[in-house]
Amino acid sequence: MTREKFDGRKRVIIEAASPEVDGGAFPAKRVIGDAVQVEADIFTDGHDVISAVVLHRHDARPDAAWAEERMRPLVNDRWRADFKVEALGFHRFTIEAWIDHFLTWHRDLKKRVDGGASEDELRVQLQIGREQIRAAAMRARARDRRKLEAFIETLDSDDPIPEKLDELRSEDLLALMARNAERRFAARYPCELLIEVDRPKAAYSTWYELFPRSAARQEGKHGTFADVEAQLPRVARMGFDVLYLPPIHPIGVTFRKGKNNRVEAAPDDVGSPWAIGASEGGHKAVHPQLGTIDDFEHLVGAAKTAGIEVAMDIAFQASPDHPYVREHPQWFLMRPDGTIQYAENPPKKYQDIYPFHFESDQWEALWDELRDVFAFWAQKGVRVFRVDNPHTKPLPFWEWCIRDLKREWPDLIFLAEAFTRPKIMYRLAKAGFTQSYTYFAWRQTRQELTDYFEEITRPPVSDLFRPNVWPNTPDILTEQLQFGGRSTFTMRLILAATLSSSYGIYGPAYERFVHQAREHGSEEYLDSEKYEVKYWPPAEDDLTELIVAVNRIRRENIALQQNTTLTFHPTDNENILCFSKTAGENAIVVAANVDPHNTHAGWIDLDLGALGLDTGHPFQAHDLLSGARHTWHGARNYVQLNPQVVPAHIFRIRRRVRTERDFEYFL
Amino acid sequence: MTREKFDGRKRVIIEAASPEVDGGAFPAKRVIGDAVQVEADIFTDGHDVISAVVLHRHDARPDAAWAEERMRPLVNDRWRADFKVEALGFHRFTIEAWIDHFLTWHRDLKKRVDGGASEDELRVQLQIGREQIRAAAMRARARDRRKLEAFIETLDSDDPIPEKLDELRSEDLLALMARNAERRFAARYPCELLIEVDRPKAAYSTWYELFPRSAARQEGKHGTFADVEAQLPRVARMGFDVLYLPPIHPIGVTFRKGKNNRVEAAPDDVGSPWAIGASEGGHKAVHPQLGTIDDFEHLVGAAKTAGIEVAMDIAFQASPDHPYVREHPQWFLMRPDGTIQYAENPPKKYQDIYPFHFESDQWEALWDELRDVFAFWAQKGVRVFRVDNPHTKPLPFWEWCIRDLKREWPDLIFLAEAFTRPKIMYRLAKAGFTQSYTYFAWRQTRQELTDYFEEITRPPVSDLFRPNVWPNTPDILTEQLQFGGRSTFTMRLILAATLSSSYGIYGPAYERFVHQAREHGSEEYLDSEKYEVKYWPPAEDDLTELIVAVNRIRRENIALQQNTTLTFHPTDNENILCFSKTAGENAIVVAANVDPHNTHAGWIDLDLGALGLDTGHPFQAHDLLSGARHTWHGARNYVQLNPQVVPAHIFRIRRRVRTERDFEYFL
Repeated sequence: MTREKFDGRKRVIIEAASPEVDGGAFPAKRVIGDAVQVEADIFTDGHDVISAVVLHRHDARPDAAWAEERMRPLVNDRWRADFKVEALGFHRFTIEAWIDHFLTWHRDLKKRVDGGASEDELRVQLQIGREQIRAAAMRARARDRRKLEAFIETLDSDDPIPEKLDELRSEDLLALMARNAERRFAARYPCELLIEVDRPKAAYSTWYELFPRSAARQEGKHGTFADVEAQLPRVARMGFDVLYLPPIHPIGVTFRKGKNNRVEAAPDDVGSPWAIGASEGGHKAVHPQLGTIDDFEHLVGAAKTAGIEVAMDIAFQASPDHPYVREHPQWFLMRPDGTIQYAENPPKKYQDIYPFHFESDQWEALWDELRDVFAFWAQKGVRVFRVDNPHTKPLPFWEWCIRDLKREWPDLIFLAEAFTRPKIMYRLAKAGFTQSYTYFAWRQTRQELTDYFEEITRPPVSDLFRPNVWPNTPDILTEQLQFGGRSTFTMRLILAATLSSSYGIYGPAYERFVHQAREHGSEEYLDSEKYEVKYWPPAEDDLTELIVAVNRIRRENIALQQNTTLTFHPTDNENILCFSKTAGENAIVVAANVDPHNTHAGWIDLDLGALGLDTGHPFQAHDLLSGARHTWHGARNYVQLNPQVVPAHIFRIRRRVRTERDFEYFL
Repeated sequence: MTREKFDGRKRVIIEAASPEVDGGAFPAKRVIGDAVQVEADIFTDGHDVISAVVLHRHDARPDAAWAEERMRPLVNDRWRADFKVEALGFHRFTIEAWIDHFLTWHRDLKKRVDGGASEDELRVQLQIGREQIRAAAMRARARDRRKLEAFIETLDSDDPIPEKLDELRSEDLLALMARNAERRFAARYPCELLIEVDRPKAAYSTWYELFPRSAARQEGKHGTFADVEAQLPRVARMGFDVLYLPPIHPIGVTFRKGKNNRVEAAPDDVGSPWAIGASEGGHKAVHPQLGTIDDFEHLVGAAKTAGIEVAMDIAFQASPDHPYVREHPQWFLMRPDGTIQYAENPPKKYQDIYPFHFESDQWEALWDELRDVFAFWAQKGVRVFRVDNPHTKPLPFWEWCIRDLKREWPDLIFLAEAFTRPKIMYRLAKAGFTQSYTYFAWRQTRQELTDYFEEITRPPVSDLFRPNVWPNTPDILTEQLQFGGRSTFTMRLILAATLSSSYGIYGPAYERFVHQAREHGSEEYLDSEKYEVKYWPPAEDDLTELIVAVNRIRRENIALQQNTTLTFHPTDNENILCFSKTAGENAIVVAANVDPHNTHAGWIDLDLGALGLDTGHPFQAHDLLSGARHTWHGARNYVQLNPQVVPAHIFRIRRRVRTERDFEYFL
């Protein structure tokens, strides 16, 4: 550091601002309407009073003046201010702080008066204050200047000193001086930090997955987009707002996989929708048996009318029949024998799949084309993408691609399907993915669920990573679901829907308790519809009504539409998991039996503070699933959960309020 | 991010490097001989093998090539490498990592062979490998090139494939390929990080404080530098290696304070050494009654001969009589009545002290002069400075001043006397202070000591902050010392000397158990030598011999010369504090009774892993204070401590070793 680079009179230090992701290298994520709570350590040498403000503005208006929020000190030199974000896209903020000589003088003047300062001393002090007010008046514009000059006139008058001191206590004067403060030596935080603001659905969404080709209303038929449209009322009634479809593109025939992922396909096998590309086209085409692009657009529109967004699956890989293979062979890795490198995990070979070669000399053209795939579908009205295996494509690609697309469509939502190591999952989130799949399916004990959700719902992770939890997917039929029976499906759905503000199910299989694995030790479904057309006839006594109830509870309780207030409460039975979420007046407590086989009972020890309750008053726990209402009288409460009946309570906590007329009701 | 700025083929991500202080804004601190352990999260998309290196060099050789240390993967995508620092000053490091296509191919080749790949397939693979070796040969210099070409010739020969595969397994080939790796798309960590290397005394030092004016060998005399010289053998025998003297400059007379800090001084009162400056001079002069600058230099040299460094106290403030007041009135704040602003904490006034006005227009001249004060004494041979109240001077000043001085004298040590809020103390350490005073004096219970030392001896704090712990100072006579008796002085000395690798005492008072406060509730000494000349006659049965023993134990046990391995062990009595330190073969366990009034006994539960012991073998605990030897057989061991006898054990742990000749001894 050379002294010439800076003004040594900037004495305030600003450190450790939050939210800050990797020193400002990536934005922190919020949604429209959020209050961004900015904090920093702010201090200086000596005992002078500091003033500090958060400066913020939308990144699209770099020339606009910063808006300012005054920060207030907490404890241990930590300061805080909030600002609300009301527009999509990037918001930028930083912090400015300065020694406030006027406030220092004002504080000390009070101490001097209280300490019995002499009249001579007070006269000198009033002169010092007068000079500061004078300087502020010089900086101020018309109205403020006139008001400040009025104070100066009072100080210059013959009024007795006590009256002048009275005048200086005015809140008006403090506000005027704050607005026109001397900020010549104000220090700035060393960098500007970003907030990326998405629409509310980025934080709160309810997903349903189905295979369009299995949507036919008649056995033995290949489903179409029109068949999917016919399912919309049912999906909407269940309370889902995103309908996710596996890839809808033409499917390759070369090395096509047979039923149950057999290496040899039978002539009538339909193949995996993830083997993308055939003579009919690639990532910008649709599989002819599903319909046309117009039919797809019609589905997107009909879904929107039903309150549902269609999420497309984007899987960046090509079957050997993909037009890219012929048109852009440079985008694939050529082996010395002149063949194209297929996907491998030696000694396993996936000859039906060609990965893209991202170290190609033509990498820029490849990047452009891949981005254009998203753009193509965005132009057709799609705003939600589920990206298949993003962790097998370069992280810098995603950072560029997603940011570039959101510049044009800031309402886009990208869900990362990356079941990989934690640091890679978090980096994908930093690179721009809006939501991410999680390890939820494999977190089953009280301890596992507590540890994992405490990690992903608190900063620093929660500033960048938004979980979307799935009890099952077409690739994941956990051992617990295979052997736990109906109570497991019920319990895991309730946990998914309440632990996380975003969750989803691979619906046709989940509703019907489909639980048979391809073979022992596998998480693959037997006769998976990844490789064949299924027919899902209407079912009775399936999970539908529970799903309807749970999703209604989510809609009616804003506490469940976010994760930041998730709090786990101790219980004396390790099979009973208890947690709560609160938002404003709304408070939800969930008590779940995580053992699907046995009834468990125990005491839960509620953190009443986290629920906004005081210990002195009874409160009502209203079970939103059964309708039962209990009056509770303190932190310790007893629950008993029989998984064969219902493995969990979802309580709404209602505070008892006594009005003036001595009438009790619950809020 | 615009795509043009970077090459999208750099696919490796490097994150969260350590040691890293505030994103690289400040150096991490180490001493000569340390191995700097560098870690980072390193990963990429897909399944390719990564190679990574730490690049490092001394900052004084910016044009030198980076030295490289190969990193090895730990768990969870964390990688590590060490490099040793052997020169004072700043070292710079960063990390480079790349997809290692050769190692990926090499790993996969083994899997292919194990998986029974066809001969055709292997032939293609050998061709891919050959091309990579060929490319490495083109990059390599003479000798490596010839060796790589020999491998190519083998691959090109008619040898059967199994023999070629054998050849490829050679460690030689792996080393050659590592040295000549393809690093075209290597990624770099986004910034270069600094290590500041000090001499060993920065981390391990033993301080003794005395007032030179009280060093006279005869009552009623004003001590001199020559008197201090006469004390050197005694200080050296006790095992101290830094002798810290309060300010030695001329003392102001205007508003001089009297005995016990009275506002009115008597004519013969000598004043406080911290009221610096009189007609005889200021910060570059010495108080005439102590001697001359030559006498001081003589003392510095004599101390050096005795293995002791003299630490000067630098207090940046002026008495009204300081020459600066006359020569540089711009360096002080002028009040509207034409008087200079004295120090105040309203309603308290310190009219004998003028603080410097760091917002002066002449701030640059002021900075230069203050730096020159240090330079002046450094030229006289002083290399250790204790800085008085650095937190009342601007933090940017220290950052500039210390770095500038260390450019010329990289062996300087600065101790910050900042008893203030934690974030300010840590920021002073970031600004360049080598060591800092701590809250040790007020951390007295087991919990308080454990919490505090866990905070300050572990990263991130330990990378920037080096504690120097003092049970007393001339300003701090804790209530515990006032009322705890001799056992408290013993216990607190042992704790200071073993918890922290640097500690110090205000010796004449500590040795003699001086414990009377000026008044109830005060931590000031009664008749403090801050305001008067004292005479300290030789004492009998004082703490000297314990100090001799404890400091000898510190010298003979390298575990006590560092803090990074400090580990606390559980005990079942909250009055018994147990902790250990290890270094190489040396392991020390301390068990202390923190209650000075009562005997306590209890079980300690040693973390044998932290001590490098395995559970199966007995070991010896050798009490280095009493000489007693105990054979212990596992983690749980009983101790009983009577504070009236000795309030602590300092055990050296000796592992029992069985040699070939069945002869047991303890290491």
